[in-house]
Amino acid sequence: VSSDTDPLITLTTDIGWAYAAQMKGVILSRNPRARIIDLTHDVPPHQILEGAFLLLHMARPFPPGCIHVAVVDPGVGGSRERICLVGPQGTRLVGPDNGVLSPLAEILGAREAYRLDPGRVIPGETPSATFEGRDIFAPAAARLSRGESPESLGPPVAWQRLKLPEPVATSEGFEVTILHVDRFGNCITNVPMTAVRDRWGASEISVVLGAGRHRERVPIARTYSDLPLGTLAVLGSSFGLAELSVNQGRADERLHLRPGEKIFLQGA
Amino acid sequence: VSSDTDPLITLTTDIGWAYAAQMKGVILSRNPRARIIDLTHDVPPHQILEGAFLLLHMARPFPPGCIHVAVVDPGVGGSRERICLVGPQGTRLVGPDNGVLSPLAEILGAREAYRLDPGRVIPGETPSATFEGRDIFAPAAARLSRGESPESLGPPVAWQRLKLPEPVATSEGFEVTILHVDRFGNCITNVPMTAVRDRWGASEISVVLGAGRHRERVPIARTYSDLPLGTLAVLGSSFGLAELSVNQGRADERLHLRPGEKIFLQGA
Amino acid sequence: VSSDTDPLITLTTDIGWAYAAQMKGVILSRNPRARIIDLTHDVPPHQILEGAFLLLHMARPFPPGCIHVAVVDPGVGGSRERICLVGPQGTRLVGPDNGVLSPLAEILGAREAYRLDPGRVIPGETPSATFEGRDIFAPAAARLSRGESPESLGPPVAWQRLKLPEPVATSEGFEVTILHVDRFGNCITNVPMTAVRDRWGASEISVVLGAGRHRERVPIARTYSDLPLGTLAVLGSSFGLAELSVNQGRADERLHLRPGEKIFLQGA
Repeated sequence: VSSDTDPLITLTTDIGWAYAAQMKGVILSRNPRARIIDLTHDVPPHQILEGAFLLLHMARPFPPGCIHVAVVDPGVGGSRERICLVGPQGTRLVGPDNGVLSPLAEILGAREAYRLDPGRVIPGETPSATFEGRDIFAPAAARLSRGESPESLGPPVAWQRLKLPEPVATSEGFEVTILHVDRFGNCITNVPMTAVRDRWGASEISVVLGAGRHRERVPIARTYSDLPLGTLAVLGSSFGLAELSVNQGRADERLHLRPGEKIFLQGA
Repeated sequence: VSSDTDPLITLTTDIGWAYAAQMKGVILSRNPRARIIDLTHDVPPHQILEGAFLLLHMARPFPPGCIHVAVVDPGVGGSRERICLVGPQGTRLVGPDNGVLSPLAEILGAREAYRLDPGRVIPGETPSATFEGRDIFAPAAARLSRGESPESLGPPVAWQRLKLPEPVATSEGFEVTILHVDRFGNCITNVPMTAVRDRWGASEISVVLGAGRHRERVPIARTYSDLPLGTLAVLGSSFGLAELSVNQGRADERLHLRPGEKIFLQGA
Repeated sequence: VSSDTDPLITLTTDIGWAYAAQMKGVILSRNPRARIIDLTHDVPPHQILEGAFLLLHMARPFPPGCIHVAVVDPGVGGSRERICLVGPQGTRLVGPDNGVLSPLAEILGAREAYRLDPGRVIPGETPSATFEGRDIFAPAAARLSRGESPESLGPPVAWQRLKLPEPVATSEGFEVTILHVDRFGNCITNVPMTAVRDRWGASEISVVLGAGRHRERVPIARTYSDLPLGTLAVLGSSFGLAELSVNQGRADERLHLRPGEKIFLQGA
């Protein structure tokens, strides 16, 4: 059997490398043929929405048939379910049913979900109450990668349809939410860049922080290097969304922004 | 030959990704079939005990027959030996003989060690004095992964039997050592959670910092989400050990704790 | 086909894991047989010289025939070219033509470069203006890994011959540049350790910070553990270059040094 038929399992977590390593060992001990791809283990701790946003964009380019495992799981050991969502062409999503899988599932058009029943995933074993990534999700991914069906791991269930926050159009522009701050300090909002361009063209807009705390006119730019060093601008992120960016600086520090915050984009 | 027979080599280091990348190149240039798995390159610099603790728990879930390479090596280029420890079913541990391999070797029941003789591992080459991970351990792992025997790399040797610190039972409870602080700020102690439960059941205990500096009553919890946000508690880590944890906060910052520190767990 | 013939693609970036994950998905969706090796995603943001230095040393140990992709690309979406450099025995380097590939290309003896023409790499698609790592370099690497020729992706071009800064010999010693600060705080200079030893032997030298701001006598050492804890010294890094190091401390913090800074090594 050639290696291109070996199953791909991707890992997206907020748990850091050392805990994720234990998941890799569990997977490989149950399926030595699995090919494990680290997406990121740097999701900010406990941030389900940011994890869901990142998973959506990281997993989408992967070929059909991958098993995507997400562990951003502040409710571990509690009452939230564990699920396997089934996408088209054999793609499967594995993780807690807290919404972290929802945006990816929706884009993929997943139609079914199955509960991961510990009695079927790890018969005779008791999972820890604090790390189901290792004790349930990794063994489930290994079973799926060996060709076992999601149905064999638990009954069909409904799942949480968490939505990423939507921008709100106002008479003056948009109220937007910061979905993610990247390694460069770019602040990615939830409004499509096309909507910004449709409204204001290629000119200037104003960035307004809550309650009039701060208002600043910024250019609309095409890319970082079109701007003088240190200039704050709005431009189209690679996610297709408007982002606030400082050429070779950090927009998050400049504006004191963090994921989850709401700001306003308005006419200049 | 199918890919599931390709040898697995895991890497655990404190050297960061860029130095570890050089090890990967050395391994793959000597055995292109090797499958390299990054466990972590984030061991706190020079922390042999914490590295040994993490290696033990990361490598244990892996299947037999892996080659586990550990590079936490403050004595590089000095008089400490380089060794290959032989576990059951073909598992091999490669690294400096400073104790970083010892807890894993003991759990695996390793019985033999062989010195890694540079003249045999890299005949005709001179290793640098500052990075034997690249110059000796990686080539040794590559040789082992091609089926060469540990005996062919050097003579049998005794090895350091470093023990992780043990908790001390006192009349009032336990003196414990922080073995690891994880990405969430959870402080993992060296006392089994079963010992804590056996002594105090599911009620409260006191966490006492050295010399009466601080004493605080905390609940014994089952998992993070059983607690109000921001509450400090003792619960069972996924390592099976008692950990101090703040639900969605950082216990290390709350108590100013670092790996290696000793604290007391006492009756409430 | 056995796995050792599957093509190796290495990734070196300053973009962090989440963006790099998208590159992996693009590569694997176009060539499921590709074996992707993470070198580092931690190059300091926008630092072309430091990225070039790290790529040179990380990629060199890899076997011939690898495809090395580098994304340190502050000029993304601007006028800088995208290129594929061709080394001996099928080694290929892919990235922006801003110099990040140059030192590696020179060591390898690369003789030809080809422009990566978006119309040929991703016919019918429009790349984003902000992430060509995902939109052009990853698809190009996937094509090359499937056996397509660099010539098929664009016409021959000249490329930037960026040089790493050279040390300057003076009557008193050397003016050197810090090329890299590693995870331990070691400050790697651009002067070969052999040149330091040739000039001063195994004794002491002086480290002089700009404009007489600071002058300190330090020993020349063989390795870290030869020094008392906390002692600043000059020793031979694993890159073959002189580095400033504090045994189990941080030389960068001790001397307030950062990559790109110039200092002087002089007689004691």
